[in-house]
Amino acid sequence: MAVRTPDPDPNESDDNGASRDPLRGMESSYGSGSNGTNPGWLTDVELAEARRRMPMLYVEAIPVRTDGMGAVTQVGILLRATPVGEMVRTIVSGRVRYGETVRDALFRHLENDLGPMAFPMLPPQPLPFTVAEYFPIPGVSAFHDDRQHAVSLAFVVPVTGTCEPRQDALEVTWMAPQEAASDALAAEMEGGRGTLVRLALASVGALR
Amino acid sequence: MAVRTPDPDPNESDDNGASRDPLRGMESSYGSGSNGTNPGWLTDVELAEARRRMPMLYVEAIPVRTDGMGAVTQVGILLRATPVGEMVRTIVSGRVRYGETVRDALFRHLENDLGPMAFPMLPPQPLPFTVAEYFPIPGVSAFHDDRQHAVSLAFVVPVTGTCEPRQDALEVTWMAPQEAASDALAAEMEGGRGTLVRLALASVGALR
Amino acid sequence: MAVRTPDPDPNESDDNGASRDPLRGMESSYGSGSNGTNPGWLTDVELAEARRRMPMLYVEAIPVRTDGMGAVTQVGILLRATPVGEMVRTIVSGRVRYGETVRDALFRHLENDLGPMAFPMLPPQPLPFTVAEYFPIPGVSAFHDDRQHAVSLAFVVPVTGTCEPRQDALEVTWMAPQEAASDALAAEMEGGRGTLVRLALASVGALR
Amino acid sequence: MAVRTPDPDPNESDDNGASRDPLRGMESSYGSGSNGTNPGWLTDVELAEARRRMPMLYVEAIPVRTDGMGAVTQVGILLRATPVGEMVRTIVSGRVRYGETVRDALFRHLENDLGPMAFPMLPPQPLPFTVAEYFPIPGVSAFHDDRQHAVSLAFVVPVTGTCEPRQDALEVTWMAPQEAASDALAAEMEGGRGTLVRLALASVGALR
Repeated sequence: MAVRTPDPDPNESDDNGASRDPLRGMESSYGSGSNGTNPGWLTDVELAEARRRMPMLYVEAIPVRTDGMGAVTQVGILLRATPVGEMVRTIVSGRVRYGETVRDALFRHLENDLGPMAFPMLPPQPLPFTVAEYFPIPGVSAFHDDRQHAVSLAFVVPVTGTCEPRQDALEVTWMAPQEAASDALAAEMEGGRGTLVRLALASVGALR
Repeated sequence: MAVRTPDPDPNESDDNGASRDPLRGMESSYGSGSNGTNPGWLTDVELAEARRRMPMLYVEAIPVRTDGMGAVTQVGILLRATPVGEMVRTIVSGRVRYGETVRDALFRHLENDLGPMAFPMLPPQPLPFTVAEYFPIPGVSAFHDDRQHAVSLAFVVPVTGTCEPRQDALEVTWMAPQEAASDALAAEMEGGRGTLVRLALASVGALR
Repeated sequence: MAVRTPDPDPNESDDNGASRDPLRGMESSYGSGSNGTNPGWLTDVELAEARRRMPMLYVEAIPVRTDGMGAVTQVGILLRATPVGEMVRTIVSGRVRYGETVRDALFRHLENDLGPMAFPMLPPQPLPFTVAEYFPIPGVSAFHDDRQHAVSLAFVVPVTGTCEPRQDALEVTWMAPQEAASDALAAEMEGGRGTLVRLALASVGALR
Repeated sequence: MAVRTPDPDPNESDDNGASRDPLRGMESSYGSGSNGTNPGWLTDVELAEARRRMPMLYVEAIPVRTDGMGAVTQVGILLRATPVGEMVRTIVSGRVRYGETVRDALFRHLENDLGPMAFPMLPPQPLPFTVAEYFPIPGVSAFHDDRQHAVSLAFVVPVTGTCEPRQDALEVTWMAPQEAASDALAAEMEGGRGTLVRLALASVGALR
């Protein structure tokens, strides 16, 4: 599959207009100036510059449905349109902002991508099932992102409500673990996310 | 604290009269005889004999309450009367039966100890936060059980409903993580379970 | 592949003649009788009986070679002859004895299967990468063992020395992670161990 | 203990003069300019600016000694002089650079802090025992860093050689797990690292 525009973080735009303030008053301690702008919010230019200079911290989530005993029965894969109009399969993914906890970032991106009625059950453990390292040059690791060096904390998150994809995510497709682990799906995912889905399935004992 | 009668498994009695059949037809493959008894059910004598000869497989659970973001806010500690009338603090604990999955055993013991309305949320991951090894002689490990060599898979399990302790468990006390990690509580728990509670808190990032 | 005689534990025979005493004096507290036999050692008949009645506790190990940075470069797969002369691919596997720690059992079986010069580096963490549940009836889980219900704590163990397989293990084949994860290898392994190898690779970030 | 100058990353200075090039040719793909400077290296001013705007990715390591069976016997705690001459206890800690793998960053900081003869055994698993979130305002989490919002992947690393602290680290003190978990030690550590040491001990089953 041709990969033109990897875009693991369609929510970046809300860096400039989020309804939830991740800084919770932190700016006051930094004298962010009379214009009241939050130093943790980055302009597009600043973000592009940062991406060339530093590893970016991400969170990613594989939404799952579980049965009454907690076993994973289905995996939610997003269908998303890239800026050039290609359709790709992907997962919930986004940047951690300055001053934001990993847990808050995870919840924010789940809500952004799955809608407010998804009711994700964040795990009590703060530990990801894997740390995925995305490099701008392919082959350094299993993961690749043209735009940046990103380090992603990846979680499996059961969702109990109704998913109504928002923003760039057009649709959530629920599939059996076996289908989610298939080479066919991996071929439709960018940047090595097929591998990430398999690692997620392994972590919940649903990989064969 | 004097420890007369460690009793991590008050549910053993239901080995002889469980309503849920864990074997799901397995006995038919073993020719369990015309009396229809399940070979996986042990008499008291047989169980006592097994305990002198083999490591016994257990599951244990630390019930927790979580906030809307999944962070642990409270820990549930059981109050239980021992056969000689002592009161001890403990956690959900019990044996895995022949033919029973770890997940089923965990659910069964949660229901036995917390009642049918506790609504435990079993984790999608089948991995315990620790493997606790109980030896009949103190000092071999952090855990000790006069009766047996038991190896326990220990889980943190969020419960969302109402706990109505049954069987020997008299009461569930909900306490803040800091109190649950205290030396005072550890002194009221048997067999090293104070350590187990601390390891559970560490696994959810709630130990300071 | 026809599976006639699953044999995950070729070391069971040394239950009757081990050089390392796992009980470390435990028998004295149990009055093991005038003949001085260790109650934790089981005769073949007793072991067969126990296997029909209780879950058996196992440890399993996937031996690996690592590079100077700790990354897994090769996976060690054993070639073993079954009692009926079939050749199967397998991993290090064996029972935990009464009174024996998981760590000691792991070390004992590594030494039995890989020889005394393998120099395994047991991990400081006591947590397995997965808990594999083997049932006598296929389909209950990903893992299957005709003889018994076994619950196995499975570890990835770097070995730094020379492997000289002993007992029933004829050979250790070192292969790249990609080959170890292949369907071809899985087809040569019994009881679902191909899945276990993949879960092991996932846990060390070596599954694609 | 008064905490004037938290300094979890004494190696920042080598951002401008490292002997190991973490970027491995990445700059060529970014047209870093005629002066050939690596865009991933930050000047002090740029680094200070980044710290006010983005979460910084760190790795941290708790060095340990293990016995022949892999069990942790001792924990290595660093003694370090702050810029104002105070002595603090700390652990191995440092930033992940642009283009650098987590594993490489971990190795680099271990070598920087413990010297070239420490021979750390990096774990095959890429997963940290915890993700520690340091916020510039105390109380948001268990961890605190005046300078920045840092997210740290924390590992337990057995070292087998001789530690010769370099740079700002004056000394490595080896202590028993019980001492490392004590309130006395925690009081000498900054930013919540006493908690981090306890979580490390919990992860290796060495916390009581």
